[in-house]
Amino acid sequence: MNARDITNMSQQAANGLPCRGKVLNLDNMNPNVRRVEYAVRGAIVQRALQIDKELKEGVKKPFTEVIKANIGDAHAMGQKPITFLRQVLALCAYPDLLDDNKFPDDSKQRARRILEACGGHSIGAYSSSQGIECIRQDVARYIEKRDDGISSDPDNIYLATGASDAIVTMLKLLVCGKGRDRTGVMISIPQYPLYSAALADLAAVQINYYLDEDKCWSLDIAELKRAVTAARQHCNPRVICIINPGNPTGQVQSRQCIEDVIRFAKEEHLFLMADEVYQDNVYAEGCKFHSFKRVLFEMGPEYSTTVEMASFHSTSKCYMGECGFRGGYMEVINMDPEVKAQLTKLVSVRLCPPVPGQALLDLVVNPPQPDEPSYDKFMKERTAVLAALAEKAGLTEQIFNTVPGITCNPVQGAMYTFPRITLPQKAIDKAKAEGQVPDMFYCMKLLEEEGICLVPGSGFGQREGTFHFRMTILPPTEKLKFVLQKISDFHIRFTQEFS
Amino acid sequence: MNARDITNMSQQAANGLPCRGKVLNLDNMNPNVRRVEYAVRGAIVQRALQIDKELKEGVKKPFTEVIKANIGDAHAMGQKPITFLRQVLALCAYPDLLDDNKFPDDSKQRARRILEACGGHSIGAYSSSQGIECIRQDVARYIEKRDDGISSDPDNIYLATGASDAIVTMLKLLVCGKGRDRTGVMISIPQYPLYSAALADLAAVQINYYLDEDKCWSLDIAELKRAVTAARQHCNPRVICIINPGNPTGQVQSRQCIEDVIRFAKEEHLFLMADEVYQDNVYAEGCKFHSFKRVLFEMGPEYSTTVEMASFHSTSKCYMGECGFRGGYMEVINMDPEVKAQLTKLVSVRLCPPVPGQALLDLVVNPPQPDEPSYDKFMKERTAVLAALAEKAGLTEQIFNTVPGITCNPVQGAMYTFPRITLPQKAIDKAKAEGQVPDMFYCMKLLEEEGICLVPGSGFGQREGTFHFRMTILPPTEKLKFVLQKISDFHIRFTQEFS
Repeated sequence: MNARDITNMSQQAANGLPCRGKVLNLDNMNPNVRRVEYAVRGAIVQRALQIDKELKEGVKKPFTEVIKANIGDAHAMGQKPITFLRQVLALCAYPDLLDDNKFPDDSKQRARRILEACGGHSIGAYSSSQGIECIRQDVARYIEKRDDGISSDPDNIYLATGASDAIVTMLKLLVCGKGRDRTGVMISIPQYPLYSAALADLAAVQINYYLDEDKCWSLDIAELKRAVTAARQHCNPRVICIINPGNPTGQVQSRQCIEDVIRFAKEEHLFLMADEVYQDNVYAEGCKFHSFKRVLFEMGPEYSTTVEMASFHSTSKCYMGECGFRGGYMEVINMDPEVKAQLTKLVSVRLCPPVPGQALLDLVVNPPQPDEPSYDKFMKERTAVLAALAEKAGLTEQIFNTVPGITCNPVQGAMYTFPRITLPQKAIDKAKAEGQVPDMFYCMKLLEEEGICLVPGSGFGQREGTFHFRMTILPPTEKLKFVLQKISDFHIRFTQEFS
Repeated sequence: MNARDITNMSQQAANGLPCRGKVLNLDNMNPNVRRVEYAVRGAIVQRALQIDKELKEGVKKPFTEVIKANIGDAHAMGQKPITFLRQVLALCAYPDLLDDNKFPDDSKQRARRILEACGGHSIGAYSSSQGIECIRQDVARYIEKRDDGISSDPDNIYLATGASDAIVTMLKLLVCGKGRDRTGVMISIPQYPLYSAALADLAAVQINYYLDEDKCWSLDIAELKRAVTAARQHCNPRVICIINPGNPTGQVQSRQCIEDVIRFAKEEHLFLMADEVYQDNVYAEGCKFHSFKRVLFEMGPEYSTTVEMASFHSTSKCYMGECGFRGGYMEVINMDPEVKAQLTKLVSVRLCPPVPGQALLDLVVNPPQPDEPSYDKFMKERTAVLAALAEKAGLTEQIFNTVPGITCNPVQGAMYTFPRITLPQKAIDKAKAEGQVPDMFYCMKLLEEEGICLVPGSGFGQREGTFHFRMTILPPTEKLKFVLQKISDFHIRFTQEFS
């Protein structure tokens, strides 16, 4: 029995309760878990759900629904699933439909191929832990096509329960050491909080490098050098994580920048983790997605045979937005074969990624071809989603930048805007007095007054003294315009109230 | 740079390679991950997959297919999916089918209800991290019905990516402390190796308690006392895990035994984890599944208001065997509300369990009712699967017990047999000479000679000097008879060869 248990016991005894605390309480639970924070589903979302319930119970509010612009959840925002994907999934779930004339031949052919690769021809069987082999082959072919022929080995592909799962698994492999030898992981600020959460859980050292907001959130190698040099004083930096296109910041990295990062990783002997889940979400003119893998190989064997890397992709984003299926993969490059064996062993403990998500991934990497019956409809639906996103990306930047006190970088890619907001000193003081960080105070007030749920910038990290929020651009155009107007009005009102 | 890096560098320099080792290698990877073992998909399964490939490539073997009896994967063994479940899943995946006359009304009604609870009425949206609310309500009602009215709160239900996910999450919350204060977790020997793997990963202390093979793998409280008392010398025992019905051992615990375990957990101040994923898989006459929750509440408020517990269930076993969907849940009881908030936060980092798996779970806990059109077919299919399993359980015990040197307890429940095998000393010596544990040597030889893949008992733990294997009883009856005969013949041959 430790001191905490004794304290617990005395408290309970004083209350006249049986003389023993909980086996598991806040003081004796895993301290790493306590340190985990995940703002995208944090306090503000809890409050949004409460308000939803209050509205349903008839409580009167200045609005009739809560608009949840906190998360990149396309279908929840009204985006319709792509017909072809869902037809094949239905065929896989209930193969009796393979006799149905309503389904086009190519959807049936895809479903048959997936089912043949499943144990007992059922998506209800476990797959191999690394993922169904023919799907890994399709992923490798997709990568080869994307990268203009640079080869990809299906044995280097690991299917996963969404990209999040693969990212956490990769970080877990990389963390070791104690004290000053503890693994340090470089992450961008602002970052997607999966990274900080995973690092807290693994008790790894988070090394922040700051993106340059004034240069459209670009990544500066001098800043990487500063960060890694400072970190070497107190930990062992071994990993650099890059999100491209950026989340929450929406920038798309130039080819040159990617080359510089790869050179930096090699020089500093770092494992490179490239989060490329938004690779199809590029909107800005002049911007193009360059995969880290491709740039690595184009830099020649000095790099392509030495730099260790993992790249991550997902079925949750891009044009399909199928978040609920939890599909994704990673490709590992130059990984030590003994470590790969350990990775395979580690993922086998959880048996396999969800097979419907694997099937969905297969369709995403192996979509209808021009000579197939589903091609036209598929392309029409895909193009419409991406065109609407591009329009909304432009709209968002444009409207926010008309508001005094809001500055917004172009949304070059991904699904979010991360505008900077100027908050009056009085608001900052009021927030502090209420024990809140200022941008949380701002977002909570917006939620209560307008029913719009955003995530405060502090949940992603930001330079000291600056304030932001993350908003997804996913609502349908008319609703997005409405949301942008509401936020703009609120910002002006807020500024006046606290001036 | 540490000593390992320098060693690596010198090795590489000696080989004329660039003067730097891998960023990530076997020596500098996460040491906890290295310690993880998961026999169910271990070396023997790797070899089985190789043999599969060799057969496909035309290599001649004494058999034409590898029979994988290593894992409880019902569909892979030819079990057909339950029609009603798959109909509803197809409707959820492709809602255009809701207009199709081929589907019965109750399947459509279930699909509509699930879709209405999804963001944007799509299973492609993220759900809340704890799981879709109406599904958690259905789970709670299912538990109430199972436990004859003892109440269940949907807020205590957490849906998960299979039961494995929930078990690992719960263990993660419970692990803290260093050295002699490190959390100790009691697990049965033999155990399901998810537990030992998770404990290695979390660097928790594994406390073994042995099941009594001579008494049909029953659990003896004196043995629990022995184990916990010894463990208190070197760690802080905080958790006891029970698998009922047993995996790999197939026993079904008596009500009395469950009461004793609960009393023990209270006395020793342990958190109780009840792995009840085989709750519908009870075959032996006189045996009945008693849930820990129900027994806890029937023991009165002294227990029902104090003993902290989590119970786990899955869509992968029972009559449906839908492993690929990765559906499952846990119910937590008497958990500190502050810890519950931490649990909710922790699961939110992974966003949500796969929504198709959640939908499937909903159907399992809310199956067709007698007045609904799908009822008769559903019951016919369900009953047929369970009756076949009961027959195969009996058959397995009966055939194995005719073989000299194989002793097999009754398969009262679950999906496995864990017979004891007597190995000649010469075989044990030969195995040692080849650097293998004796039961792995035995199982590898069986695989090479007969194409049957089992898991050696050492992967689950067994008393020193005893040897076992785990085999699933899932193959179709005729194939199971064939497998049992092949193993019996092999055992006799093996015994002769090494006598």
